[in-house]
Amino acid sequence: MSAVAGNFDAWLRDRVDHTATVLDDLLPPAEDDPARLHEAMRYAVLGPGKRVRAALVYAAGEASRTSNGTAAAQDLALDAAAAAVELIHAYSLIHDDLPCMDDDDLRRGRPTVHRQFDDEALAMLAGDALQPLAFDCLAQMPIAPALTVQAVRLLARAAGSEGMVGGQAIDCASVGQALPIEALQHMHRMKTGALLEASVLLGGVVAGASSTVRAGLESYASAMGLAFQVVDDILDVTADSATLGKTAGKDAAQGKPTYVSIMGLDGSRELLAGLREQACAALLPLGPSACRLRELADYIIGRSH
Amino acid sequence: MSAVAGNFDAWLRDRVDHTATVLDDLLPPAEDDPARLHEAMRYAVLGPGKRVRAALVYAAGEASRTSNGTAAAQDLALDAAAAAVELIHAYSLIHDDLPCMDDDDLRRGRPTVHRQFDDEALAMLAGDALQPLAFDCLAQMPIAPALTVQAVRLLARAAGSEGMVGGQAIDCASVGQALPIEALQHMHRMKTGALLEASVLLGGVVAGASSTVRAGLESYASAMGLAFQVVDDILDVTADSATLGKTAGKDAAQGKPTYVSIMGLDGSRELLAGLREQACAALLPLGPSACRLRELADYIIGRSH
Repeated sequence: MSAVAGNFDAWLRDRVDHTATVLDDLLPPAEDDPARLHEAMRYAVLGPGKRVRAALVYAAGEASRTSNGTAAAQDLALDAAAAAVELIHAYSLIHDDLPCMDDDDLRRGRPTVHRQFDDEALAMLAGDALQPLAFDCLAQMPIAPALTVQAVRLLARAAGSEGMVGGQAIDCASVGQALPIEALQHMHRMKTGALLEASVLLGGVVAGASSTVRAGLESYASAMGLAFQVVDDILDVTADSATLGKTAGKDAAQGKPTYVSIMGLDGSRELLAGLREQACAALLPLGPSACRLRELADYIIGRSH
Repeated sequence: MSAVAGNFDAWLRDRVDHTATVLDDLLPPAEDDPARLHEAMRYAVLGPGKRVRAALVYAAGEASRTSNGTAAAQDLALDAAAAAVELIHAYSLIHDDLPCMDDDDLRRGRPTVHRQFDDEALAMLAGDALQPLAFDCLAQMPIAPALTVQAVRLLARAAGSEGMVGGQAIDCASVGQALPIEALQHMHRMKTGALLEASVLLGGVVAGASSTVRAGLESYASAMGLAFQVVDDILDVTADSATLGKTAGKDAAQGKPTYVSIMGLDGSRELLAGLREQACAALLPLGPSACRLRELADYIIGRSH
């Protein structure tokens, strides 16, 4: 375990650092006009982050690699896909933190974008500009255009009204309501799950995954998409603000339904164990090349202990 | 003149109606979950609008058609491109109207989205969801994937920090400042020009325009991108709110620099005449197939009389 874990830690650190370099290179320079907008975009994207979505892209890429296309081109395409999902994630956090949404002052231990720049309009526009940058990034991948088009569709659907933004809208509308577990699950599948799932599938598409591998990735992605939110809900009640890098207990204080509020802590942990089993079973047909995906499942779920 | 004008009027009416049908079909049904989000998206997109951007896509498509690909597939692709630019335009208006931006109550003679639904978060999310829908729409075009990828890049760059959103950021930052004419022009080229230009170029790319035709379209698009804003600035001081469908004189009241405030009415009209000449000259090499583009130039510039 420890050898593998050490190995995984080094791999993850490397991927996190590499993603930051890729994002740094592709974001417009802070001195380029309009400078303040570019500063805000860079502040939001290049701050500390776990880069879980990027790691899922890379891990799914490793599990899916084929001999079609050169390895160098596949590497560049995986970089672009990893950056694209992080850009979408970063934009969603900026907008989520705005006064008309969650009205948060703190994100990952730093002032939120509208707080840092004391400018709501700028924060909204920075989010607005990160979204097309993600699609531009995908459209520059040096792979078969037909795969690029598939990737654009995947990301667009995950980010839209039937994915992430739809989930946020349901979340906003359900504050203070006692949501049945099915409705909560549906909301989270959209709000958090859709982009996490898209990260896994993008890694597969970009690396030319076979249909068998894609099927395995889909089942894995579906389990992990849900698991991630369960972990978040558990951490919201068990961790302190310093550990979280955001205001702990906020969901409970705002009367937001969470897995913990509905199923309790033990029930939520049982659900997690089941999701981990589903994820591992889905990876079995993929063999040893899926080891990073397996380790990422342990890493994501391990955060709740 | 009157026969051609009648002809053009009928063509434009047909394209405007057709665009509305295409948008109606591709927007998620209002009863689909999350229903309120979908209602807000539909309210913003399907309201009255001049559909100038869609018309530019279709007109450029007519000027660029080649025998590559079937006519039916090119028609569907032009529909998708026309819808995509209208979706981006609609999202930008929702966000522009929000309290943290222009704080407008009226748009095209109706309450703005956040006013109509009395919900700022919903309005922001509706805008956020329209953006990926535009890219999803392009990614479904039944044309060569390499052309689709070009189209995605074009739209993404036009919508991002070096295009529309960048222009909005500069606009916000320059309220109350005496902007030199070059800076004003630069801002408008980004804020309004980028998407108008992209509309023309998208029509060309999607219909498989040759490089000669593309060069002509680029010069035409660049002139029209600027002309459109000059017309808007003239109308802001010469028309009343009922005609505009928005609050007239608002730019002047907010101390925003405009062409009229810098060059005066006569200077602005002279500038327009020059831009119209540039647009017509650019279309000469394209021959009679460019007649709708020529008529659109007259139509857009004619609004200022």
